[in-house]
Amino acid sequence: MSNPSLLILPGDGIGPEVMAEVRKVIDWYGAKRDLTFDVSEDLVGGCAYDKHGTPLTDETMAKAQEVDAVLLGAVGGPKYDNLDFSVKPERGLLRLRKEMDLFSNLRPAQCFDALADFSSLKKDVVAGLDIMIIRELTSGVYFGEPRGIIKEGNERVGINTQRYTESEIARVARSAFELARKRGNKVCSMEKANVMESGILWREVVQEIHDAEYPDVELSHMYADAGAMQLTRWPKQFDVIVTDNLFGDLLSDLAAMLTGSLGMLPSASLGLPMANGRPKALYEPVHGSAPDIAGQGKANPIACILSFAMALRYSFDQGAEADRLEQAVNAVLAQGLRTADLLGEEGKQPVSTAEMGDAIVAAL
Amino acid sequence: MSNPSLLILPGDGIGPEVMAEVRKVIDWYGAKRDLTFDVSEDLVGGCAYDKHGTPLTDETMAKAQEVDAVLLGAVGGPKYDNLDFSVKPERGLLRLRKEMDLFSNLRPAQCFDALADFSSLKKDVVAGLDIMIIRELTSGVYFGEPRGIIKEGNERVGINTQRYTESEIARVARSAFELARKRGNKVCSMEKANVMESGILWREVVQEIHDAEYPDVELSHMYADAGAMQLTRWPKQFDVIVTDNLFGDLLSDLAAMLTGSLGMLPSASLGLPMANGRPKALYEPVHGSAPDIAGQGKANPIACILSFAMALRYSFDQGAEADRLEQAVNAVLAQGLRTADLLGEEGKQPVSTAEMGDAIVAAL
Ligand SMILES: CC(C)[C@H](C(=O)O)[C@@H](O)C(=O)O
Ligand SMILES: CC(C)[C@H](C(=O)O)[C@@H](O)C(=O)O
Repeated sequence: MSNPSLLILPGDGIGPEVMAEVRKVIDWYGAKRDLTFDVSEDLVGGCAYDKHGTPLTDETMAKAQEVDAVLLGAVGGPKYDNLDFSVKPERGLLRLRKEMDLFSNLRPAQCFDALADFSSLKKDVVAGLDIMIIRELTSGVYFGEPRGIIKEGNERVGINTQRYTESEIARVARSAFELARKRGNKVCSMEKANVMESGILWREVVQEIHDAEYPDVELSHMYADAGAMQLTRWPKQFDVIVTDNLFGDLLSDLAAMLTGSLGMLPSASLGLPMANGRPKALYEPVHGSAPDIAGQGKANPIACILSFAMALRYSFDQGAEADRLEQAVNAVLAQGLRTADLLGEEGKQPVSTAEMGDAIVAAL
Repeated sequence: MSNPSLLILPGDGIGPEVMAEVRKVIDWYGAKRDLTFDVSEDLVGGCAYDKHGTPLTDETMAKAQEVDAVLLGAVGGPKYDNLDFSVKPERGLLRLRKEMDLFSNLRPAQCFDALADFSSLKKDVVAGLDIMIIRELTSGVYFGEPRGIIKEGNERVGINTQRYTESEIARVARSAFELARKRGNKVCSMEKANVMESGILWREVVQEIHDAEYPDVELSHMYADAGAMQLTRWPKQFDVIVTDNLFGDLLSDLAAMLTGSLGMLPSASLGLPMANGRPKALYEPVHGSAPDIAGQGKANPIACILSFAMALRYSFDQGAEADRLEQAVNAVLAQGLRTADLLGEEGKQPVSTAEMGDAIVAAL
């Protein structure tokens, strides 16, 4: 059997730096655990635009469709702020999500013990926090038509369309219920059914799938504004949250920030099974491209490394190896190693991106 | 000159209880400060549906258009959850907002010193917090057409439309810049211009209004997901935030919850000037109808009382009297009086809704 294949897209800003550390981890698995990946690398985002005039070439898109998993760093930066909408770095990422049909975006919000003090929230509110947000990733207002800026009389009008079909809601609901069964068996679905018809349909379909297929899972519904409040007030009330693309964007970032572990949080975006049974998959850190610190060796590679751990778990059925990698990260944190983002104002000495990567490999 | 007129719409749940305390305050101003209002009262929300089969009758709507200001309690409750979308309690509130054209929703997120401990955030993160969120309230995805649940082949499809015209954005931007000039002179505008064309137009128009009319105000732009993060991380970086209807719904609730003072926060919704120069206006607490504690005398009337203080300030040009009322609230808090929502688990004795209202009147 041939090796599983990985396409690495480091992207912009700190993307290449953190991805370099992931490659050390991948190499370690090849050398020590007989888990060898066929790795290729390519461009996405601003760097792809610089070279090819588009944030994602058709060739790269085709490669992403063929490999077993894509690892992405981050895209974007102020240099590209004034580009036309159609070639902005983000379009590359959105095209990958859409054409690979990665409808289920798993965003764990987990508070690492060693970092609980680093949250802006009180320690008892966040210590031990472990929730999973499932965000629908291929539909809703991100992709709905009609869209654009049109002229009406003398005025410009900006238009986007929120649009969800029954089957789009059903499949992401299933993925939330499946995941809940492996965790705390509780799902909270969030929308604005009190003001949006798309929210009404969302609520109905999630309830129908629950009643027909997952009656054993505890299901509740919450308006998204109340959800933002409750996440802030007492996040530990949640286990799995399922929500749409736009609400998921805000709520998962909010949940990530609660933990104080923003530079630590990975994500997985999963689609339908391929011929080999593996799901289409893309893994990326939750943090962005952080152009202000790019190229200085200050970035925290852990979120990207933990994204690879998610790949081991969800694409390659290597749960035990994923655990091993997560434990190595915990061990390094317990030793007191911190990149600059995890230090606050305390004036301790931070380790560099590469030192953090090396320490994690050593802990493996 | 005739007395200024107020229409009181207590609504559902705890609405009537908290509004009863506001009436004591209104009576005090009539008796002691020669500020007499012509007060009428009517139904909105579930109680209006129970009586008239609609959450807002045309007669009540007409009255709201004629008075100088509307005071609203809260709408909604589980009893009405299965009503048809078109007659849900919320539709009454949304109709008022839309037909009175209340485009500028002012939502202060203020942390009361006496309550800083009550936040889930660390004290230094929230103590002294005082930000103002200006939410566009009459357009966007709340009102855009087409909308509904349609059938496509075998599937139901839920559709809503996000739609903003240039002039809708311009007028709410102006109201944010005007307010900033009276505060910290800083505005941060939030949208998702990286994925939504309506966000691109939003950003452009806010920038144009700034450059042409308010170049003295400091303006920044932030993606709404980053905004949710930054509000959680270090909310004091903000002065005035301006954002659209849907983002404003989530972000203002989030900001309110940060303060730990949720039962304390008022809001004002302002429209265009009427013939007498006063803006069309509706004032309401940020909290909801809290059906679980309705009718038990447990509700905190302060948010609703402070909404009346906003009415004194923004509708009746009585800034000094508004200050007086706010100081009375502070004095009562400093005395240690707390309704149940402000007590947490500590086991102190809470005061009732009426006791809190009486104490505030006494402090006046
Ligand atoms: C970069 C951007 C297009 C993206 C999004 O809005 O989905 C990001 O915020 C995310 O959450 O992955
Ligand atoms: C009750 C509901 C319709 C309303 C909204 O979504 O605007 C509420 O959440 C608010 O923020 O005033």
